[in-house]
Amino acid sequence: MNVKIKKFAVTLFKWIFFGGVIGIVVGSLTSFLLKTNDFLGDDIRMNHFWLIYFLPLAGIAVGFLYMNYGKKESVDSAKGNNLVIDGVHGKAGVLRRMGPIVYLGTFITVLFGGSTGREGAAVQMGGSVAQALNQFFKVNLLDTKIFLMTGISAGFGAAFGTPITGAVFGMELTALGKMKYEALVPCLVSSYSAHFLATAVWRIKHEEFIIETVPSLSAWTFAKVILAVLIFSLLSVIYCQLRHGIQKFTEKFFHKNHMKRAFVGGLLIVGLTLIVGTQDYNGRGLEMLEHSFTEDVPPFAFLAKLIFTAITLGTGFVGGEAIPLFFMGATLGNTLSNMIDLPMSFLAAIGLVAVFCGGANTPIAAFLLAVELFDGKGVEYFFVACIVSYIFSGHHGLWPSQTIHEPKS
Amino acid sequence: MNVKIKKFAVTLFKWIFFGGVIGIVVGSLTSFLLKTNDFLGDDIRMNHFWLIYFLPLAGIAVGFLYMNYGKKESVDSAKGNNLVIDGVHGKAGVLRRMGPIVYLGTFITVLFGGSTGREGAAVQMGGSVAQALNQFFKVNLLDTKIFLMTGISAGFGAAFGTPITGAVFGMELTALGKMKYEALVPCLVSSYSAHFLATAVWRIKHEEFIIETVPSLSAWTFAKVILAVLIFSLLSVIYCQLRHGIQKFTEKFFHKNHMKRAFVGGLLIVGLTLIVGTQDYNGRGLEMLEHSFTEDVPPFAFLAKLIFTAITLGTGFVGGEAIPLFFMGATLGNTLSNMIDLPMSFLAAIGLVAVFCGGANTPIAAFLLAVELFDGKGVEYFFVACIVSYIFSGHHGLWPSQTIHEPKS
Repeated sequence: MNVKIKKFAVTLFKWIFFGGVIGIVVGSLTSFLLKTNDFLGDDIRMNHFWLIYFLPLAGIAVGFLYMNYGKKESVDSAKGNNLVIDGVHGKAGVLRRMGPIVYLGTFITVLFGGSTGREGAAVQMGGSVAQALNQFFKVNLLDTKIFLMTGISAGFGAAFGTPITGAVFGMELTALGKMKYEALVPCLVSSYSAHFLATAVWRIKHEEFIIETVPSLSAWTFAKVILAVLIFSLLSVIYCQLRHGIQKFTEKFFHKNHMKRAFVGGLLIVGLTLIVGTQDYNGRGLEMLEHSFTEDVPPFAFLAKLIFTAITLGTGFVGGEAIPLFFMGATLGNTLSNMIDLPMSFLAAIGLVAVFCGGANTPIAAFLLAVELFDGKGVEYFFVACIVSYIFSGHHGLWPSQTIHEPKS
Repeated sequence: MNVKIKKFAVTLFKWIFFGGVIGIVVGSLTSFLLKTNDFLGDDIRMNHFWLIYFLPLAGIAVGFLYMNYGKKESVDSAKGNNLVIDGVHGKAGVLRRMGPIVYLGTFITVLFGGSTGREGAAVQMGGSVAQALNQFFKVNLLDTKIFLMTGISAGFGAAFGTPITGAVFGMELTALGKMKYEALVPCLVSSYSAHFLATAVWRIKHEEFIIETVPSLSAWTFAKVILAVLIFSLLSVIYCQLRHGIQKFTEKFFHKNHMKRAFVGGLLIVGLTLIVGTQDYNGRGLEMLEHSFTEDVPPFAFLAKLIFTAITLGTGFVGGEAIPLFFMGATLGNTLSNMIDLPMSFLAAIGLVAVFCGGANTPIAAFLLAVELFDGKGVEYFFVACIVSYIFSGHHGLWPSQTIHEPKS
């Protein structure tokens, strides 16, 4: 056999194998995450509203976890997704323990009503699993990066039920302004197999968001969409700035004592919850997120969620930022649909995707997310929305570890 | 005003402006191309089947055009899309005259029944217009590249009525294995405005391909799709090899005398047309391409088209390779649907996209093409099909000027 073909076959088989293994492991672990979270956050918390009063104590527990078990030498699991991104860049080793810790931290945050998602936990567990396999098989540095990207893809694909987006997200996440295809095969295999395992084997049901009407294509509608997206991208910038501001301030003020930080964060959330008089902005807030596609929601819901989430995650609670961003975008879209003459479900969908894109800085993955979440409706609008949001969110973002490959303009 | 924001605003405005200008000019010129081609290829040729006998003479005319007007110093328009790609890499200047010449060459090829498309002409005209504007505004080298990508996007978006694909195609075309986002804004603006102009102002109607049934997601169906895609990517490799082989051979044999090359090519096509006894494989062959979604077509139609097109384009006729690749893929899919148990229209669609992807080496653009052409149906399958085809088509492709950024495995 020709040497080149043999090398091709070996490499291909290697990546299909590792992609499959990572996909199966991460798909199962993500299913466990989703089911446990649903149980803690919906079944338990929703029936015991007093749990929120224990959020400050829960904060101490989360802080304790990270302070005592999160670090190893100079590597700190508290960096969350940034650590995974640094890992892809070869700047830091991802810790295997990161996955279990972020799971436990997410369970605690969710049970006691912090405002958070869970896909960050899925992505970080993906990174941990990739790292563990990596150490087990003793692969080289270049492959380490691909392993991590593969883990990210598996976590994202399984957490959202969007395998295409998962595959691209793993490749697009780590750098602003480019996408390299080197990890195409393992990311594809891991994202699809993780999704398949989560849905077919573990019977995970994902949320469905339905766009009722898509406006017919016209220059005027595009103009309105672009205007709305400018507002959405501003929202994502404000969120990212506030969240990082809170983090920096509390880390400095409490000398990196995560227990004190999260305790105060918990107190603030309890206070805010009492002020707004509802627990709509605690937890994932899936109910209001779904409502924002079908009926009017409070006009400042997006702002409440922004503050709740920035405090929750800025003071050291964990989980994920995608669902809160979806919430902010969709509810703001809902609010704007009363001012900009566009269908409510359509503008909620645009907001959901645009705010996510502005934070994650992954325009192609965000667009694919829209294709997968909304069944290929209104793709022309979503593509423009993602690009505009990407451009106007500037070099801010959820994860400072993303390298700036190409300045956006 | 903050200097950074001012610079951002100026750059953004610049690219929106140039993207819009290129989009409007290229959109109009592409509309002219499509309308003229439809007139020559459908209205005239279909009613005067004897025109095919003049194809050898037409070949002399096309060769004459390129030999006498196509060159300037060392730059040769006969390189077609490769010249545009070289232009983006800064290796060669694109000639302004390339656009008019490829248009005329395409009209002649189409009128006398060469087997070709027309989107190559649209892309090359896009490059020419970008180059002309570029020289007019005297922009610098880095911007020259972006200008060319913008022109490519406009041509592709308008020619196929797929603005999203057009935007990404311009960014993805030039290198294997990566996509840089530097040209995001101008490519988006030019592709959308060109498409808008072609449809809303010039009333271009694009073909519609409808997938009747998409199989429900299962591992077994994925296995069958992957098997089919392996065959499709093999087809694209064979086509590319044959077409380049014919080109190399005839160029050497006739000492780059394009008139002699195309004359002989024309003779061969006439002979083959008489042998098969139908003109189904001359021109764009849209009728059979559409049939392949709804009814059985001749089982070896794909092979006939492969040979007709490789000879037509390999001997120096011009037009475009996408539509012939669509034809080969869809008809082979049609044939395979009798052996692999998958719905006919579904497999025809998979073939169309997979063969195109294998030739163009643009997996993300090919996937987006599927989303736009087939209304977002079966996206999970198309994504896998594009990646598999991209991987298995190896480093062959339609355009040797694509640089290999990342080996595929």
